[in-house]
Amino acid sequence: MTHYLVITGGVGGAKLALGLSTILPASDVTFAVNTGDDFSHLGFHISPDIDTLTYTLAGLNDIDRGWGRREESWNFLSTLRTLDEETWFQLGDRDLAIHVYRTSLLAQGKTLSEVTNVIAKKLGINHFLTPMTDSSLGTVVVTSDGKLPFQDYFVKYQAKPVVEAVEFFGSELARLSPGVSKALASPDLRGVIICPSNPYLSIDPILSIPGFRCSLSEITVPVIAVSPIIGGKAIKGPTAKIMNEMNLKAGCSSLSVAHHYRDILDGFIIDTLDAGQSDDIAALGIEVSVGETLMTSLQIKQDLAQHCLALIEQIQS
Amino acid sequence: MTHYLVITGGVGGAKLALGLSTILPASDVTFAVNTGDDFSHLGFHISPDIDTLTYTLAGLNDIDRGWGRREESWNFLSTLRTLDEETWFQLGDRDLAIHVYRTSLLAQGKTLSEVTNVIAKKLGINHFLTPMTDSSLGTVVVTSDGKLPFQDYFVKYQAKPVVEAVEFFGSELARLSPGVSKALASPDLRGVIICPSNPYLSIDPILSIPGFRCSLSEITVPVIAVSPIIGGKAIKGPTAKIMNEMNLKAGCSSLSVAHHYRDILDGFIIDTLDAGQSDDIAALGIEVSVGETLMTSLQIKQDLAQHCLALIEQIQS
Repeated sequence: MTHYLVITGGVGGAKLALGLSTILPASDVTFAVNTGDDFSHLGFHISPDIDTLTYTLAGLNDIDRGWGRREESWNFLSTLRTLDEETWFQLGDRDLAIHVYRTSLLAQGKTLSEVTNVIAKKLGINHFLTPMTDSSLGTVVVTSDGKLPFQDYFVKYQAKPVVEAVEFFGSELARLSPGVSKALASPDLRGVIICPSNPYLSIDPILSIPGFRCSLSEITVPVIAVSPIIGGKAIKGPTAKIMNEMNLKAGCSSLSVAHHYRDILDGFIIDTLDAGQSDDIAALGIEVSVGETLMTSLQIKQDLAQHCLALIEQIQS
Repeated sequence: MTHYLVITGGVGGAKLALGLSTILPASDVTFAVNTGDDFSHLGFHISPDIDTLTYTLAGLNDIDRGWGRREESWNFLSTLRTLDEETWFQLGDRDLAIHVYRTSLLAQGKTLSEVTNVIAKKLGINHFLTPMTDSSLGTVVVTSDGKLPFQDYFVKYQAKPVVEAVEFFGSELARLSPGVSKALASPDLRGVIICPSNPYLSIDPILSIPGFRCSLSEITVPVIAVSPIIGGKAIKGPTAKIMNEMNLKAGCSSLSVAHHYRDILDGFIIDTLDAGQSDDIAALGIEVSVGETLMTSLQIKQDLAQHCLALIEQIQS
């Protein structure tokens, strides 16, 4: 028995997660999902990254739009607009059912872990999805315009304000979810994979949970990551913009990401476009592996997933 | 200045309300709507009769289906079904936006009166719609299968259980809404019109509010009603079935309805089909007027509305 702990945010991470889910049996992997973006809107508990993972693994995601559900309709939202209600957060009619269901189960006293598990199962997902935590932990973006809750920054203000820092409200009191703790403690654990998600907004929230970053740095199995940066750019979202605003020594690059994770990483997969950064990354004591990381097809997702497992084996041996 | 207080339930009453709204200026009428059917579902506060009145007066109702909104879609509900969640109550995607908005305003501390008013205005209704009460008052149907909250009886069990009695939970503590109280106390009040709604399930709830039935029996302006029964049948809904189950002396007939309202009614409009009951109803001290009451067109709705005003004038003179 081998087991992998996979840490992921939304869209970019979900692509690798999908690749991993197609090559690993359901019992061999725990997908730990960022919940720092979770928020309450119109009375609903919305978990954007969990939903993205759920829809992606269930094959219900809208590939063209890049978020939300396929075959979505928007009549709820358009009616809300006639009421002059806030409609900056795009709530599709089908998507809304998930939020209503989640909110109703949470109100009955179920944990987010339990709810996530129930929804995943009902949508036909056999693999194990878990929120990083059942605690309330909110990503707050410190910008030149003041502190903004993540969704305000990301959706309402379309990631335009200049980012100075990122904080995680409630992280001191947060605890890892039972699913993450169990995977970490499992004697079968073979490696930890950090998906190509935004390091600052999607991965740091889970790393901010007391003890987790330390556990990863001390753990005996390999911890690897796939760089979300290709040729100085991010595929999607504000990662590159944020990295440029943060005055990092190595700018927006895979090297900067390696620096950011250097205390926990044993291995790092970067794109062939960034092969020139290999030596600098290796100098941080990280094993570098170069390959194709732009996941434009299911085949590439599966290949990158295989690449992750191979790198773990290589480091372990 | 003249003013009319119109008491109504859902579909049948909404037809006459629409007729009245097209012949009376906005300032001349108060539509007091039954809230005994209100319930909480999936965390939403749903007010079925207020919604029916609102959609009807706003021209947004689905005429063919007879309830809900036109151009409705059902993707929220079909998704909920994939989650094995309760879907016995039909929630359209557009309709849902109203429930979410109402629930969100109520959670902010607004009263149902305020919320009803806000929604009506946003949907372009100039006439004044008010819930009968801002208090919690729930219609409970006592059946041979036990006591059932109204929506369980009506939707979940499709009005199949045999009705023995109807109770109004919370009515002892309920108070009329400010809108109804104001209309009742207005020196301009010219008459009270009880719409052709179910007397037991849609009108009795408001009559159960302490003091209201007594006010109507003592008020100096005419109180009239339009019979919901035509030729021993009801147009829609379980009215006839319930009346047959209740072992009324006059069975399911306009005469039975007149008996039910006899302490408060000055005038009663019955269908030409029921003209034969005129003498028995008149014997109760009620002025009877015969006309067309099957509201199959806007013209007939308007004619019946005119008929109501004429009967009030006739009684007053």
